This record gives sequence, C-alpha cells and structure tokens, in this order.
Amino acid sequence: MSQQKTEASIITIGDELLIGQTIDTNSAWMAQELNKIGIWVQRRVAVGDRWDDIWKALDEEAAHSRIILITGGLGPTADDITKPLLCQYFGGKMVTDPQAEANVRHIFEMLKRPMIDRNLRQADVPDVCTVIQNRRGTAPGMWFEKNERIFVSMPGVPHEMKGMMTNDVIPNLLERFDVSPVLHRTLLTAGIGESFLAERISEFEDMLPKNIKLAYLPSYGMVKLRLTATGDRPGLEAELEAEFDMLKQQVTDVMVVDADKTLPQVVAEILLQRRQTLATAESCTGGYIAHLFTSIPGISECFQGGIISYSNAMKESQLGVRAETLKAHGAVSRETVLEMARGARLAAGSDFAIATSGIMGPGGGSTEKPVGTVWVGLAGQDRESASQFHFRFDRMRNIELTAMHGLNALRKFIRYP
Amino acid sequence: MSQQKTEASIITIGDELLIGQTIDTNSAWMAQELNKIGIWVQRRVAVGDRWDDIWKALDEEAAHSRIILITGGLGPTADDITKPLLCQYFGGKMVTDPQAEANVRHIFEMLKRPMIDRNLRQADVPDVCTVIQNRRGTAPGMWFEKNERIFVSMPGVPHEMKGMMTNDVIPNLLERFDVSPVLHRTLLTAGIGESFLAERISEFEDMLPKNIKLAYLPSYGMVKLRLTATGDRPGLEAELEAEFDMLKQQVTDVMVVDADKTLPQVVAEILLQRRQTLATAESCTGGYIAHLFTSIPGISECFQGGIISYSNAMKESQLGVRAETLKAHGAVSRETVLEMARGARLAAGSDFAIATSGIMGPGGGSTEKPVGTVWVGLAGQDRESASQFHFRFDRMRNIELTAMHGLNALRKFIRYP
Repeated sequence: MSQQKTEASIITIGDELLIGQTIDTNSAWMAQELNKIGIWVQRRVAVGDRWDDIWKALDEEAAHSRIILITGGLGPTADDITKPLLCQYFGGKMVTDPQAEANVRHIFEMLKRPMIDRNLRQADVPDVCTVIQNRRGTAPGMWFEKNERIFVSMPGVPHEMKGMMTNDVIPNLLERFDVSPVLHRTLLTAGIGESFLAERISEFEDMLPKNIKLAYLPSYGMVKLRLTATGDRPGLEAELEAEFDMLKQQVTDVMVVDADKTLPQVVAEILLQRRQTLATAESCTGGYIAHLFTSIPGISECFQGGIISYSNAMKESQLGVRAETLKAHGAVSRETVLEMARGARLAAGSDFAIATSGIMGPGGGSTEKPVGTVWVGLAGQDRESASQFHFRFDRMRNIELTAMHGLNALRKFIRYP
Repeated sequence: MSQQKTEASIITIGDELLIGQTIDTNSAWMAQELNKIGIWVQRRVAVGDRWDDIWKALDEEAAHSRIILITGGLGPTADDITKPLLCQYFGGKMVTDPQAEANVRHIFEMLKRPMIDRNLRQADVPDVCTVIQNRRGTAPGMWFEKNERIFVSMPGVPHEMKGMMTNDVIPNLLERFDVSPVLHRTLLTAGIGESFLAERISEFEDMLPKNIKLAYLPSYGMVKLRLTATGDRPGLEAELEAEFDMLKQQVTDVMVVDADKTLPQVVAEILLQRRQTLATAESCTGGYIAHLFTSIPGISECFQGGIISYSNAMKESQLGVRAETLKAHGAVSRETVLEMARGARLAAGSDFAIATSGIMGPGGGSTEKPVGTVWVGLAGQDRESASQFHFRFDRMRNIELTAMHGLNALRKFIRYP
C-alpha cells in the first residue's frame, strides 16, 4: 500500500510544544488537508528550539518522507533559530524579499503601529527558497527542495499557516504529485461500547477488501466508525460507498449520522431543516452547550439563546423554577431540570429547550448525589422528558460528557416524538 | 546542557492522529508532568497503526532518549496492533495478568454490562513487562526495559493515561533517576506586540546567565514570557527568582499576572478575593465566556450566571434592552452592549457584568459593520464602560479573541476603577 502513496512528515518546532504549554492543533488540520488530496502523513514530530534537534529532525524525516512540512520557529523574537538553520541546511545566504518587506510595511501601516528593525527582518529569507507570501501576518513561508525532497517552512500561528496551506502549498503539491486518492467515510454511533460494536461488525470487517480499512474512534462515550479506501483502481469511490452502505445496515439502531459530523452539527441541521428553534438552560454545563451551537456559522437561524442559571436565584428569576421545587428536590433533580427547560422555552419563545443541572466536581458532591450526578431536562411544545446520568471523571470531561449525552437525548427527543 | 538532563521521547500511536481526526492533548499534559520532575521531553512523534512505522519509531526514539513513553493503540478493537508488536519487540510471549483480568471483570460488573472474550483479552500482556494496573479502564499499561532504555506503553484515553502517569509512572521514574530540576516562571502580558516586548527587554535578555532562557509565547493577542532555569547548581531557584523580578520590573505596565495562569483564572481570583460577583450577557460569544469561567472549580462563589441573548427578542425580554436602542443603533453598538451589561447585572444581582455583541463571520457583515466588529460592555455598581474591537480572523478565533480582550477589559475595569 505504501508504494502507491505519497508520504509526508510534519515537523513542529518550539519548546512550548515540548514543555506542554501549547497544544498542537496545527498538525491535525494539516493532516486533514493533505489527506484530502491523497497525501498520507505518516509521521508527526515535535522538537524544541535547539539547533541540533531541528537539524537531526530534518535529516530523519527526509529519510522517511518525500514531503516535509515544518511549522513554528519563525516569530520575530530571539528564541527563534529556525530561519538561520534552514539557511545553512539548504546552503543559502540571507536576502531581503521585496514583496515580503512590502507586506510587513503594509501590515504595520494598517495597524497604525510603529515598526522597528526586528519587524523588517521578518522579510529576510534564504536565497535558495521560493518565498510563500503571508497574507495574514509578517513572517513569510519558505519552500525548499533538496535531494528530491520538498521542505516547506511556515509560521506556527494557526491562521497564518492555514492561509499559506490553502493558497499556496496545497495547490503547488497538487501540481507536483500525481497522487492516488485516499477516501474516507465516517459515521457516528451512540449508546454502544467499542467492544460490542466490534463484535457486532466483526464478520463485516473480516470480509472487507484489502484496500479498505475500518477504524474505531471513541469520543465522549460515542464511537465513530471510519472506512478508509486507498489505491488507484477505477471505481474506488463506488466500492467504498457499497461497503459503507453495508456498514450502515449493521448499525442502524445506534447510528447518529452517516457523515463525519459533530453532534451539535447534527442537531442544528435537524432544527434548520424543520425550521424549528432551540434555547438552553444550563447550570452545570455553564454555557458550554450554547458555545458548541454558536461555534456553528449561521446558527442564529435556529438558536435563540439561553440562560446560564449557575446560582439558584438565577434559576428562579430567569427560568421561573419554583423555590419549593429547589427546596424539596434540590437543584440537581428531575423536577428542577424540567422546570428549567420549560422556563427557557418560554423565555426564548423557542420550539425546544434543553436544561442541565449536575455536580461536576471536584467539590460539591454528597453521598446521595456524588460528583458526576447529572440531570438533563428536555421540553417541547406538548411534551417533556428528563434523564439522569452518572459520570466519574474530572470537571472538564464531566462537562463535555454532559453536553454530548444531553445533545444526543435532545436529538432523539426532536426526531422521535 | 543536554548532558545534565534526563531526556524523554513521547510516541503516540494511531491513524486518527495522522489523518487529523483527533487532536493530541495527551502529549502536552505528559510533557508538563515530566518537566515538573526535571525530565526534558526532547521529541514527540506520532505514527499510524502500521507495524513497520511503530517498530522504526521505537528504534529511533531509543537512539534519541533514555525514556520512551507510548500512548494509544491499546483499545479492544481489531485495528490495534501495538500489543502484539511490543510483545515481539521485547521478545516475550502473551500471558493473562490475573490482576488486570480481575479489573476487567470488576468494571463490567460495576457497569452491569455483559462481557465478551474481546474484553477479557485486554488483560493479556507480554510476559517481559511490568504491568501497570489501570484503575480507570480495562487496558493495562506496560513497563519494559531494554538496552538501558525504559519504554512505557499506556492507553490513549486521556483520563486512563493520566491515572497511570500520576499513580505509577511518575513515582517510578522519580525513584530511578536522579534528575536535575527544570524550573519555570511565567508571566502574562497584554496590549503589547511580541516585537515591541522583545525590543524593550532585549538588554535584559542579553544579560541572562547561560542556564536561564527566555521564551515568548503569543496567544490571543497576549504574550506570555517564560523564564526556564536548568542545571544542578545550588541556589538555582533564588537565581531564577531574581531574574524574574527584574523581568517583571521591565513590563509592569503591561503585565496581567506574574504566574502561569489564564485570564479567566486571574479575573476569578480578583473577584473571589474581593468577595464580588459577576454575570455575563453574551451575544456573539454565545456562552464561551461563561464556559471559560465555569470550567474553573469552585467558581460558583463568584459567578452567578448569565444570559445568552443570541436573538434580539432575548436581548429585550431577558436583559431589558429597549427596542428603540436596537432600532436606532443596531445590536452591535455601544448603546446595546451597555444596556445588555446593565440588564445582566440586574438580572443576576451581581456586582459586575460583561456583555458582548459582534459579527463573528463568515456571514452577517456589512460595509458599515464588517465581520469582526465587536462591542464589549462592562457594568459595575456606579459606572460603566464600552469598547469596540475589530478582529479579522475566522469565526472560532474571533470568538476567542472577543472573550480574551473582553476579559482583559473587565480585569482592568474591576481593578482600576
């Protein structure tokens, strides 16, 4: 299989990645984009701001891959050694690129900020590279070739790197390589464990052709199933499609969606399609569910808003939860989340509402209601529903799990009245 | 420097990391924990579920580092080849570990789920490893030694890996290595660009002793400055402290906090210290600011809740924004965010409120108010304030930037009346 594929390595440079101060989100995005054009990222390597480590990484990845994409290490400050190193590695000397210099000057004029020499030095590049102009920042990218290997160096700032990848790197790679496609089909399941899913579809998996692979991707108590087809044969897409249809038939009862979509996207699409609206009443998730929705462009068509009733006073004043309910059953109870959901629906004038209340930890638990106890309430025009969950993880994960399980309950509530 | 340090590599295994379906958060956490005990992560490598790639990665990282930590590839499903590979790599044979088997049985009993053979196979391990019991899941960890190198294999599920690291791996490494400490001091600045900061403190940087390094870590329009001290010399901590004090003096006017804290943490600490409370009125940030606060344990002491007024109707009904204001000035205006902030403060009965309204994109912009136009309003007992911002990035980044700039304005509003 590997003979058919064009293989790439990603090198990320920066101490902040190695001491854990920064989480690397660039590599995942780059891998996705490369995958779409049939380039397989076979290795990702992170090294610190050390001359020898960077040099060795370049040597090693050139031995592994035909394409080496590099991010980071190009900022204007003194801890950056990447550009001089690249200059020496590829045997060039530093020159000022006029277009990059004009770009730096233009940005500083636009921002109405004074410019210092350090900023202008951003426009210096080794004379052995093809310059990739940065339309979103001051540091240009650099395209090098050596021993039939392509090396591309880009800034570590995500939106700058993304601009260069989209406008220059991907189009140039497409011109240079006659890549054989890698196709993916993904579906999302909920309510069944990874092992049981595997047991259920083991026969299907055994009968897959050699060029189609199945992967299990668990996330937040759900499992994604992904089929990946590779190879140059004609009809690859139809072949994958047929296998994907078979797979869907095996998991109909637990399938959330037959695409690589997130649960908030799925719920938003159902609402948009039905021209219905949603409101939220969040206690323990503290705005996270609303945030998941409002990260989706165009969501204002179906998302009205919500109330984060962290305090009991807010539950009463904004959602109309009765003081007696809170007193008799507590804030984490079926009765309270139902009153919250009703209240949010009324306040927003929406078709549906989702409410959450729970104990996310680390503090606040009791014997009766330990940390991880959660109630989710749902309200529609003429019906309502509440479910209890028990999670047992850390605060952030409990919040995420509450949101995901709540949204799945909401999806079923809307879809199957 | 590298002679004094114990160096580690992290290998993450899984196709999902290479096709970009999963963002690797494990490595950052592991690097932080190792750093605390003076172990320097010099390389992080991600490889896919391919026999040769994993084998080569083990060989290569053993050539680079003394300690090799491995995560991923241990799930119960068929795409996992890591365990058989490790068994062969270290020359062992598979046996069932009784304690791991008891753990699997216990978990399934607790979850009241039927167990299948595939689940029990999780308890199989190579007979040449020391088993690390998994208290949070079914797949045990494995500790191998070969040619004076330590290899530890752990599941990729973050909370399972974290449990093993904390309970077993870190304590065992501490026993085995006489590590020289790596110390960090970090401060957060806002309102000054990376280049200008560098220019201002260049003399300070030039005079730093060789064993103390300065790094610039830009994030969301703010810049973190980190001093890192290494070496075995006595008084290292005092030496770092003295340099850190000097650094602070140079950036007094732009410093947010002299610790490695996030802006929401800083604001929460100020409020807790003053026993004051906050409420939010979010339009364009859609719950993100509330989410940042409610991710902090114990936040209910100072955070009352908020209103996500995504629709204009919600702005009127929940926050008391006047229809005339919306009509005359629009939802994205000084007047609207001030009425929103006042309304949230009243609704929650809080000391302070922060309100956001803006156009996050990609749609919704106009010539007068292009995508990225944002107003932030702040209200206190007897004063208020509003600021306008212009961001020019993608939706998610515009939301994050609005939250961060808004929180910094809030911090100054509370602190410097």
